[in-house]
Amino acid sequence: MAMDHPLDEAAALDAADPLASFRDRFVVGDPDVIYLDGNSLGRTPKATREAIKRVVDEEWSGELIGAWDHWIDLARETGDVIATEIVGARPGEVIVSDSTSVNLYKLAAAALDAVPHRSVIITDDDNFPTDRYILQGLAAQRGLELRTLTTDLDRGVDAADVAAALDDRTALLCLSHVSYRSGAIADMAAITAAAHRAGVLTLWDLCHSAGAVPVGLNECDVDLAVGCTYKYLNGGPGAPAFLYVREELQRSLRQPIWGWFGQRDQFAMGADYDPAPGIERFQVGTPPVLGVTAVREGARIIAEAGMPAIRAKSTLLTSYALRLARSWLEPLGFSVSTPAEDDRRGGHVTVHHPDAWRIAQAMRDAKVVPDYRTPDRVRLGLAPLYTTFAEVHTGLSRLRDLVAGERHLTFDAVPGRVT
Amino acid sequence: MAMDHPLDEAAALDAADPLASFRDRFVVGDPDVIYLDGNSLGRTPKATREAIKRVVDEEWSGELIGAWDHWIDLARETGDVIATEIVGARPGEVIVSDSTSVNLYKLAAAALDAVPHRSVIITDDDNFPTDRYILQGLAAQRGLELRTLTTDLDRGVDAADVAAALDDRTALLCLSHVSYRSGAIADMAAITAAAHRAGVLTLWDLCHSAGAVPVGLNECDVDLAVGCTYKYLNGGPGAPAFLYVREELQRSLRQPIWGWFGQRDQFAMGADYDPAPGIERFQVGTPPVLGVTAVREGARIIAEAGMPAIRAKSTLLTSYALRLARSWLEPLGFSVSTPAEDDRRGGHVTVHHPDAWRIAQAMRDAKVVPDYRTPDRVRLGLAPLYTTFAEVHTGLSRLRDLVAGERHLTFDAVPGRVT
Repeated sequence: MAMDHPLDEAAALDAADPLASFRDRFVVGDPDVIYLDGNSLGRTPKATREAIKRVVDEEWSGELIGAWDHWIDLARETGDVIATEIVGARPGEVIVSDSTSVNLYKLAAAALDAVPHRSVIITDDDNFPTDRYILQGLAAQRGLELRTLTTDLDRGVDAADVAAALDDRTALLCLSHVSYRSGAIADMAAITAAAHRAGVLTLWDLCHSAGAVPVGLNECDVDLAVGCTYKYLNGGPGAPAFLYVREELQRSLRQPIWGWFGQRDQFAMGADYDPAPGIERFQVGTPPVLGVTAVREGARIIAEAGMPAIRAKSTLLTSYALRLARSWLEPLGFSVSTPAEDDRRGGHVTVHHPDAWRIAQAMRDAKVVPDYRTPDRVRLGLAPLYTTFAEVHTGLSRLRDLVAGERHLTFDAVPGRVT
Repeated sequence: MAMDHPLDEAAALDAADPLASFRDRFVVGDPDVIYLDGNSLGRTPKATREAIKRVVDEEWSGELIGAWDHWIDLARETGDVIATEIVGARPGEVIVSDSTSVNLYKLAAAALDAVPHRSVIITDDDNFPTDRYILQGLAAQRGLELRTLTTDLDRGVDAADVAAALDDRTALLCLSHVSYRSGAIADMAAITAAAHRAGVLTLWDLCHSAGAVPVGLNECDVDLAVGCTYKYLNGGPGAPAFLYVREELQRSLRQPIWGWFGQRDQFAMGADYDPAPGIERFQVGTPPVLGVTAVREGARIIAEAGMPAIRAKSTLLTSYALRLARSWLEPLGFSVSTPAEDDRRGGHVTVHHPDAWRIAQAMRDAKVVPDYRTPDRVRLGLAPLYTTFAEVHTGLSRLRDLVAGERHLTFDAVPGRVT
């Protein structure tokens, strides 16, 4: 079967890749490991390694407290890079802060407070668990209704279904831009427009799109968004997340966690909370300098490569992976979850198989690193800045061979702890 | 005047210091800089420099997503070190998570939800601004009353005053263990006992005590606590904070930010939030691995030195600084803010002077690094693990000389941005 897709074809695609040189910007250890999980934890940029060393050895160790003179602006400056280069927003609309979950809580609560006469939150069952849990918590505390729309988990959220669910009782609509399971892209423009026609604020989760798929927050008139930095932004394990608030909304929204980094003139240490006028009001505590530094370096590489080039390569990578999956994996009992249309697909490709958990273990054993997603999915993340077409070829041929040889049947059938 | 306190005396104290060798565990750059701000940002432990390098170069870069197999337990394991070695709690009662402000919000909200029939939150005007702002936010959102007791800002919170304010309408009492301004220690045992007699839950802020002053959370029967790790725990700029929940309360309390790291069996990614039974339910999002690693290294050094030895040295350092302040600074228009009694004093010494802002600037110019605290305070942090008696002598003699020579009058009188 390998004859159908000779490795030469992958090599030719790599030779023609305008972003090929970016792979060298990342630490790549064992070249035999095919890492298809950059959408869970991106690789380490070499620049980040240097920047962290500089922050620890020179700034923290050398400048001590005096380094706060420049650290104080780091979360905002890094937010500006993400805003202007990655998510289609203006300077001052994005800041790096807290975790995705905490940011989602802050912005959802702020939105709900802004429309106290509306009592329904809408999300869908394809939204990431932490998003649904956060919304469940807010609904429970405030006596609101959380409506969870049923979505085709392979096709992703449908704009018409969402539009039909919105009415004048709807306070907030919260959805993921790219599905963490299938990789399907939601129609942000159509859905946001439908929400606004119903007077509903929108909160988009960009975790699986930022850095992989162009995001037009301003173009789509999005109100609020949050996103992760340790996936395609390569910010490192548990790096702080970002949040976006449309400029026109910033002064009228107030988030519920009134910390000193959200305070106007914070070092006056005044008696009463008085939030900063701009995006800083959505901060809470002291920013994690090591983490924000890593986010800055990761975002800068994205900016340098440029989202159009990244998207072009990403589309080629996922369509190539889908071609291999169709001819190599479908005959072995796999089916493809990810949409076939280029414009409906994010940066990862997911396949179903009844033995997905065993297969994911066997792949790791064969030095191909995927993600398992319950109950029957193997997810292949193809981070465009460092994944080669040859790696896709090798990774999928190893996957094909191990399933054809039934090697996965030697692994434990019961899912254990999965990260 | 210097004759009153010869440098020899400081040298003798250093020679007799059983913790003297710990200074070598920290990066000390310019030996001429007298760093008296370790209670704002602790110095860099050499072990942390190595640990961060290992996490970046070996774990993140080398193990990639597989490193989560051990990272997943890091916040809890580090919490156990803090619990058992630093704050007098049991394993499983402390976890590293989020910022101090976010943790305070989570625990205060959980406490308020537990006593919905009570409507008053009590704090005092000596509590740190972020604590007061967080409580203001919670009171505003829930229509509760926030009572802010007036405290003698030099003597610190008075147990009898607090006891008199508590009644059966009081839901929550939130105070700082050590005052960020004067360094006065609150009587945690007496105040917590008084609160419990009135059926009131207690939430203590340990930011200025953890790592400097013995904290007996279990001994005092404290319900809830939060603390900072970038001060005496030397966790680095913006390092994640910790939170404590007394074991008996954990299952009955539910915090408001329902994130996936608080979920039981989180990687099953179930539809509904079901909080983990233990301290993990107070987590929210993905833990910041670089930050938690730094906290772990900092906490381990504290554990190795031992809180009794740290407290003994801290008391000697502050009493020595007070002696110098009385004979050298009081004649120059300073007055001492910090309590004179050893058992009422934390790890820093604060002095008042009408020109405090100018003096703080002049000190930095003279390579002595203090903190300025509005409106008239110069705060001298004497972190016991690396501050020498000779440094206290040199730092205070430089301070004396610059004020005696009126060099501070050449600096700008209007406070600017202060960190």
